Amino acid sequence: MKISKLAIFGVGLIGGSLARALKMAQGVDHIVGVERYSTSLTRALSLGIIDSATVDVSQAVQNVDIILLAAPVAQTPILLKKIAPYLHGEAIVTDVGSTKSDAVSAARSALGDAAWRFVPGHPIAGGELSGVDAAKADLYVNRRVVLCPQSENRIQDVARVRSMWHMAGAEVCEMSASQHDGIFAAVSHLPHVLSYALVAQILDTPAASLKFDFAGGGFRDFTRIAASNPEMWRDICIANRDALLHEIDAYLRTLGMLRTLIDAGNGDCLEKIFTRASQTRMQWAKQQEKP
Amino acid sequence: MKISKLAIFGVGLIGGSLARALKMAQGVDHIVGVERYSTSLTRALSLGIIDSATVDVSQAVQNVDIILLAAPVAQTPILLKKIAPYLHGEAIVTDVGSTKSDAVSAARSALGDAAWRFVPGHPIAGGELSGVDAAKADLYVNRRVVLCPQSENRIQDVARVRSMWHMAGAEVCEMSASQHDGIFAAVSHLPHVLSYALVAQILDTPAASLKFDFAGGGFRDFTRIAASNPEMWRDICIANRDALLHEIDAYLRTLGMLRTLIDAGNGDCLEKIFTRASQTRMQWAKQQEKP
Repeated sequence: MKISKLAIFGVGLIGGSLARALKMAQGVDHIVGVERYSTSLTRALSLGIIDSATVDVSQAVQNVDIILLAAPVAQTPILLKKIAPYLHGEAIVTDVGSTKSDAVSAARSALGDAAWRFVPGHPIAGGELSGVDAAKADLYVNRRVVLCPQSENRIQDVARVRSMWHMAGAEVCEMSASQHDGIFAAVSHLPHVLSYALVAQILDTPAASLKFDFAGGGFRDFTRIAASNPEMWRDICIANRDALLHEIDAYLRTLGMLRTLIDAGNGDCLEKIFTRASQTRMQWAKQQEKP
Repeated sequence: MKISKLAIFGVGLIGGSLARALKMAQGVDHIVGVERYSTSLTRALSLGIIDSATVDVSQAVQNVDIILLAAPVAQTPILLKKIAPYLHGEAIVTDVGSTKSDAVSAARSALGDAAWRFVPGHPIAGGELSGVDAAKADLYVNRRVVLCPQSENRIQDVARVRSMWHMAGAEVCEMSASQHDGIFAAVSHLPHVLSYALVAQILDTPAASLKFDFAGGGFRDFTRIAASNPEMWRDICIANRDALLHEIDAYLRTLGMLRTLIDAGNGDCLEKIFTRASQTRMQWAKQQEKP
């Protein structure tokens, strides 16, 4: 299912890599890049990642098949409002944000009767580097993309988005937006908050520099994600507030329970919990190694 | 300061690596290994890591210069009681445990008037593998060893332990046992508890397998230490209970504060905290890379 015209709002690592992959797969005739800053667009053009560039939304959306929203997630509601007046024909919109319930709400509010055009998506891929220069054609190969189809969506439109990601080499799976947000709150958003919290806590103690001085390999692994982009994680925390608060509350209870066991010197129960966690983590690692 | 006779209780990665290093540095005349199980001793003998082996404590301690306690930390009080009756002359005892206040208490209780013989130590080194087969001569090269001298210790005895670690290539620093325990509770023991807690929490939810299925790189790094040895971490949690509870309580407050900010949608404050943590973590990583 070849795409005639694809409009990418935000040509960075995520949008740029999809563009490169679709071009390599000969899955698209024309890609137009849309950015707030024309310097990024010039770079994307010179790298051959996009075929044309514009800051004019109406021009970008004209005769478009698919609009990909790949700018920082806080932009999604704003972009949806900007494109709403220009959506015609078969044009559909999809996104790449890490949270989905908020994207669905934003689409319903911005698009109204045209909310059927919005197919929410989340590619599970990324990298240490960001920006258009880091974009690569194989970023999505064998990586998963979650789509969260809504009752308003037409089956053929969900299929068009699925087909686009297949062409980029991804595996596509579907779940509800609330299931998606619950899963990622637990395995991604909560760990980021916990990791930021540990560094923040050490920072605010008198012996901070001595503590960092003696921090070793365990600290290094645990806090690697505390070096993540602060604006992006601020946005994710707020966008996925309900699911994240649910996980934080459960975590406060779990940690409180471990605190009670440590305080009571209950080694048997502690060992049982640590053993179960340790075995699960080792099994998970083995599972991940499988091709 | 060459050692005539060194007795190592527990010839695994930690004790075995020190033995190999001291032999390579020609810093010791005779090393006797002491273990509960003679099979490990046979292996250590055949690898040339020790010169003699025994399960008889009185024989091991006879005419000894330094006794190194390198068995699992829960053994420390038991071993101290076992060796107490046989300590004579200039014999001193040191250990390698991750917690120091409890080791000092155990020594005072087991050794009584001879508590001056116990010089508490903690080499900051380890590896993925454990056991005598993983022992290597360069494990301590440029790694740090913390000594926590007590008021009872004689200056020349602390110097003998320092000299032993220097011969193995380590940097030796000194601090009080309570300062040591506070630092390691914050940067090592707390992160282990937090990492175990996350895996334990996900395990006990209905969608656990789906969550693990979608767990990615952030989860992998954050939970790497949740695969650690459960018995060892049970022992550390209980041995360092007071300092660890202090850190857990501070963490519960920090996480509660972040929860309030997320609940209130206070993006500005969240971003400030995340930014400070992220910058600190990146700076820490740069510092670690320095030779």
